[in-house]
Amino acid sequence: MRPYVSIITLGVPDLAAARRFYVDGLGWPVVMEVEDEVVFLQVGHGLALALWGAEKLAADIGPGTPVGDPAKGAVALAHNVGTDQEVGRVLAEAEAAGGTILAPPRPAVFGGLQGYFADPAGHRWEVAHNPTFAVADDGSVSI
Amino acid sequence: MRPYVSIITLGVPDLAAARRFYVDGLGWPVVMEVEDEVVFLQVGHGLALALWGAEKLAADIGPGTPVGDPAKGAVALAHNVGTDQEVGRVLAEAEAAGGTILAPPRPAVFGGLQGYFADPAGHRWEVAHNPTFAVADDGSVSI
Repeated sequence: MRPYVSIITLGVPDLAAARRFYVDGLGWPVVMEVEDEVVFLQVGHGLALALWGAEKLAADIGPGTPVGDPAKGAVALAHNVGTDQEVGRVLAEAEAAGGTILAPPRPAVFGGLQGYFADPAGHRWEVAHNPTFAVADDGSVSI
Repeated sequence: MRPYVSIITLGVPDLAAARRFYVDGLGWPVVMEVEDEVVFLQVGHGLALALWGAEKLAADIGPGTPVGDPAKGAVALAHNVGTDQEVGRVLAEAEAAGGTILAPPRPAVFGGLQGYFADPAGHRWEVAHNPTFAVADDGSVSI
């Protein structure tokens, strides 16, 4: 597993309030958004910040994060890879290093494959092949 | 406040266990570390991942995050700026956008100035001028 973060997802109880703060308030640039669902912002070279419902994030992570306990799923770091095969390989590496698999590789709603692991302290990482996620030479993310 | 993240700090109950996972297990490169205190890893262009005691992180953030409730301080995003003056300016911008100041600008142990705000969902951001934090042209962080 190479050392990088692709997306920081903030689970939020109120997406409109989060959008007002980051987009209207701070003026941060939107990469892509689906109304009432999710907002992606560019926050670094090849790095996106996602605003997503805390309960949806918790449900996506799965059994390790009970729905109804948004605090436990309030942040997830994503590590995006280039192929479906790499998703399983990276999850296996994380498990071998002492991590815990929360969700084994499974088809993702965005069209590729995704899984989740937790580090020893319980911090959540998504490992995903999202065919629509790309980073341009200048670091711009597109989704 | 420009749209970028400088450091993702993971509050961990067991620093040695976190280090074993990320450094020994995954083989991620250490930027700088202080034994039994903190480990910084390079995880992107100008982006560091910090492993730090959850209670120390909670105490650093302050009253908004009670010590003894590590879950509430388990992740913080840092936005580093180039001067002491910018720390107050960025915190004021965040407050004007609807954020809540958790810690106004104050001298930091690392030699500059730091403060914290929470976004509307409660996610913590540190705004800091750390004179020892630098990003090289190739994105390498030094601390």
